[in-house]
Amino acid sequence: MTNEACATAEKVNELKLLSTSGDGEEDEKGGTDDVVNPWEVHATDEKGIDYDKLVKRFGSSKIDDELVQRFEAVTGHKAHHFLRRGIFFSHRDMHMILNRYEQKKPFFLYTGRGPSHGSMHLGHLIPFIFTKWLQEVFDVPLVIQLTDDEKFLWKDLKVEEANRLAYENARDIVACGFDVDKTFIFSDIDYISSSRAFYLNMLRIQKCVTFNQVKGIFGFDDSTCIGKVAFPPIQAATSFSNSFPQIFAGKKDIPCLIPCAIDQDPYFRMTRDVAPRLGYPKPALIHSSFFPALQGAQTKMSSSEATSSVFLNDTNAQIKNKINKHAFSGGQVTVEEHQRLGGNCDVDIAYQYLTFFLEDDDKLKQIKEDYTKGALLTGHLKKELIGILQAIVTSHRERRALVTDEVLEQYMTPRKLKYNY
Amino acid sequence: MTNEACATAEKVNELKLLSTSGDGEEDEKGGTDDVVNPWEVHATDEKGIDYDKLVKRFGSSKIDDELVQRFEAVTGHKAHHFLRRGIFFSHRDMHMILNRYEQKKPFFLYTGRGPSHGSMHLGHLIPFIFTKWLQEVFDVPLVIQLTDDEKFLWKDLKVEEANRLAYENARDIVACGFDVDKTFIFSDIDYISSSRAFYLNMLRIQKCVTFNQVKGIFGFDDSTCIGKVAFPPIQAATSFSNSFPQIFAGKKDIPCLIPCAIDQDPYFRMTRDVAPRLGYPKPALIHSSFFPALQGAQTKMSSSEATSSVFLNDTNAQIKNKINKHAFSGGQVTVEEHQRLGGNCDVDIAYQYLTFFLEDDDKLKQIKEDYTKGALLTGHLKKELIGILQAIVTSHRERRALVTDEVLEQYMTPRKLKYNY
Repeated sequence: MTNEACATAEKVNELKLLSTSGDGEEDEKGGTDDVVNPWEVHATDEKGIDYDKLVKRFGSSKIDDELVQRFEAVTGHKAHHFLRRGIFFSHRDMHMILNRYEQKKPFFLYTGRGPSHGSMHLGHLIPFIFTKWLQEVFDVPLVIQLTDDEKFLWKDLKVEEANRLAYENARDIVACGFDVDKTFIFSDIDYISSSRAFYLNMLRIQKCVTFNQVKGIFGFDDSTCIGKVAFPPIQAATSFSNSFPQIFAGKKDIPCLIPCAIDQDPYFRMTRDVAPRLGYPKPALIHSSFFPALQGAQTKMSSSEATSSVFLNDTNAQIKNKINKHAFSGGQVTVEEHQRLGGNCDVDIAYQYLTFFLEDDDKLKQIKEDYTKGALLTGHLKKELIGILQAIVTSHRERRALVTDEVLEQYMTPRKLKYNY
Repeated sequence: MTNEACATAEKVNELKLLSTSGDGEEDEKGGTDDVVNPWEVHATDEKGIDYDKLVKRFGSSKIDDELVQRFEAVTGHKAHHFLRRGIFFSHRDMHMILNRYEQKKPFFLYTGRGPSHGSMHLGHLIPFIFTKWLQEVFDVPLVIQLTDDEKFLWKDLKVEEANRLAYENARDIVACGFDVDKTFIFSDIDYISSSRAFYLNMLRIQKCVTFNQVKGIFGFDDSTCIGKVAFPPIQAATSFSNSFPQIFAGKKDIPCLIPCAIDQDPYFRMTRDVAPRLGYPKPALIHSSFFPALQGAQTKMSSSEATSSVFLNDTNAQIKNKINKHAFSGGQVTVEEHQRLGGNCDVDIAYQYLTFFLEDDDKLKQIKEDYTKGALLTGHLKKELIGILQAIVTSHRERRALVTDEVLEQYMTPRKLKYNY
C-alpha cells in the first residue's frame, strides 16, 4: 500500500458510471447518452436530461395522468405543482403506496441528503418541500438521513467537518417545517454508532451484495476505497422499518416511500434487489428531475460550484446579482431581436426556476406565453424570479433562525414518534 | 443481482490468499508453499508450517535469544515457556514496546477472537494464556475484540447467533483470569453500534484502503461480498487508542502490542501501513505458531471440525477418547518396533501438545528423550497428556462456572479502566 494508492482512492469521485451513464452510443439526436449517477449529472442537450430515456434506462415508470388522478382521488388533495408539472416524473411502486393508504395500512417516508456544504441551496429544497407536502397529505412518519459518512468518504473533508455540516444542514431541513412529532432526522455517523438495529441491517445487506454488483451499479473499480464500496448498504438500511425500532417497535414489514432526485435511484435498485432476500418489503420511490445550475440545464445546481448555486443563506443582493449575472437566458441578444423572435423557455433558467417556485399556474402560463412571443423581456422575467426567490430565502432564513439547539435536538433524538404501530 | 450471485458471495471463505499463500512454486523440499491466511492454514510438510520461511514471506522478525534475554532483563520476569520454546516465535516492533516499558511510557495489549462456536477449544487458549501473562508482567490495560460481525459475514450464521456466540466465548475468555480492572472485552456488533470514536476510526481507515489493496492482502475478488471487503478496518481500528476514549481519554498516541497467531498478521500489515497516514502509532505484534489439529500439524485445530479439536467443555472421558483415538502418533506400529526405532516427536501431536501445556522444562526434555529412543510408549505419552489436559479443562470449567451474567457485564461494559492516562 502506498501513499499514491491512497491518493488514487480519493480521486474516484470522478466516477464514470457503467450501468447508469449509458452505453456511449449515439442517440437519435446525434448526441451521446446523458450521465446520471449519484456523483455526476450531465446532459448532452441544453434543454437538460432526456428524462423519458432515463426512465427507460433505469426501468422505473413514468408518472402519468392516471397516477396523478388516482393520487388526488385517493388522498382527496389536489396534486402538488411538482406533480402537476412533471418535476416529480418517475416512480416505482407508487400504486402499492396508494393501495396501502386506501387500506389504512402503515408506511413511512424516507428522504435524505449528503451534507457537503454548510448551507443548502435552492435545489436541495425540492425533495424536502415535496416530502413535507407528502407528510401532510399522508400523515405518516418520516426519517431523514444525513450521509455525513458518505461526504467524508467522497470529498476532501475531515470526518468531524462532515459531521458538523450534517448538523448545519439539519437546521435548514427543520426550517422546511416538518412535523416534529412525526420526523426523525439523523446523521449516519451518530446513528450508526448508537443503533444496534441499524448496524445489523447494514451487515445483513453487506453480506448480500458482492463487489461485482456495486461495480456494475455504481461504477466502482479496483482503485475505489473500501469505505465507498461498503457505503451503499448504509443508504439502503434506512429503507427498512426495523432499522428504527424506537419508531416502528421492531416491525420489519412496514414499507417506505422515498421521494428523491432520480440520481439516487441506483442505491434503491440495489435495495429493492436485496429486500426480498432479507424478508423485507421493497421501498417505493418517487423521483424528481434535477434543479438546473444557473449556467444551464446540462448540469444540476451544485454546492461545489458557488456560482452555479443560490444558497439558502444568500442575501437579497447576492440573489439578485447571481440571477442577473449567471442565470442562462433563453432570450435574444438585443431587445429588438427579442421582441421580434421571442425567448426560448425550454433553455431559459429563470423560467425553469419559476416552474419550481411560482405556484400560480395561470401566471406561469402567461409568463411563458409572453416570453415566448417576445412581449416579456429577460430582465423582467428575471425580476419576477428574483422577487420570488428573495421571498423564499428570506422566510427560510427567518424560520432557520428559530431552529435553536434544543429544537434541533428534538428532531435528532432517536425516539418514539406520534404514530401508532 | 441474482440469488446465485449472493450464494457465490457466501462461498468466498474458501479464499486462496494471493499475497500470503505463497507463489505456488516448489520450495527446496520439493513441496509447494504453505497456505497461511486468516481463513486457511495448511502446511505441505507433516511437521507443520515452515515458520522460518513464513517470517521471511511476511517480513516480520524472528524472536531470537537476544530478544528473550532483553525481555527478561527489562521486565525482571523469566520468559514464559511459550517464549522459551518458540511457540511465540515472530514479532514486529517488540523492542519499541520494551523501550516504552523501560521509559515508563504507556502502551496497551490487544487480542481477540472470531466466535464461530459456542465453546472455545484448546488452541484458542494459547493467545489468551500468553496475553494474561503479558498483562501481569507489563501491568497494562487490555482490549479483547470478539469479531462476531466477521463470523456472520464469513459463515452460514445469522447475525443474532454470531452475537450470541461472542458472549459465550467471552465467558471462556473471562475464565482465563484477566484482571477485571484492566480488561475490556467487546463484541464488534455491540461496540461499533455504541461507540462513535470506534466508528470514526473505521471510516478513516476505510477511506485510506482501496479494493486493490485488500485484494492483494486478503485475496478478495469481485465475487466477495462487500461486508468482507469492508471488514479489515474493523480489526485495524482496535489497534488505535482513540477508539476507546473511555479508557485512553481520547489520546491517539498510545501504541498497542498484539499477541496473536501469525495467520492474523495480514490485518496488521494493513493496519501498520495505514497508521502513519492517520497520525497514529503502528501496532507492535508478537506472533504465535498454530496449535495443531489432532490429526496432525498440517492444519490447525479448528472449531468447524469437531474431531480435530479438544473443546473447553469436553468431559474427561471425551478428552481421553479424542487423544487416544485421534491424536496423530509419531510412534511405531508395534511395541517392539517402537522400542527398537523410537518415536518421532517432530510429528507426534501428543508430544507437541505437551510443549504447549507441560510447563516443566526438565520433565518435557525427559519425555522427548525417552520417546525418541523408544523407552516411552505412545500410550504412556498420551496418558501423560490426557492427565494434563483433563486438569486444565476441569479447572477452566470450574472458573467458567463462576462467570455470572454480572461478572460478564463488568468486563464488557465500556468504562474507565484502573490505569492512569
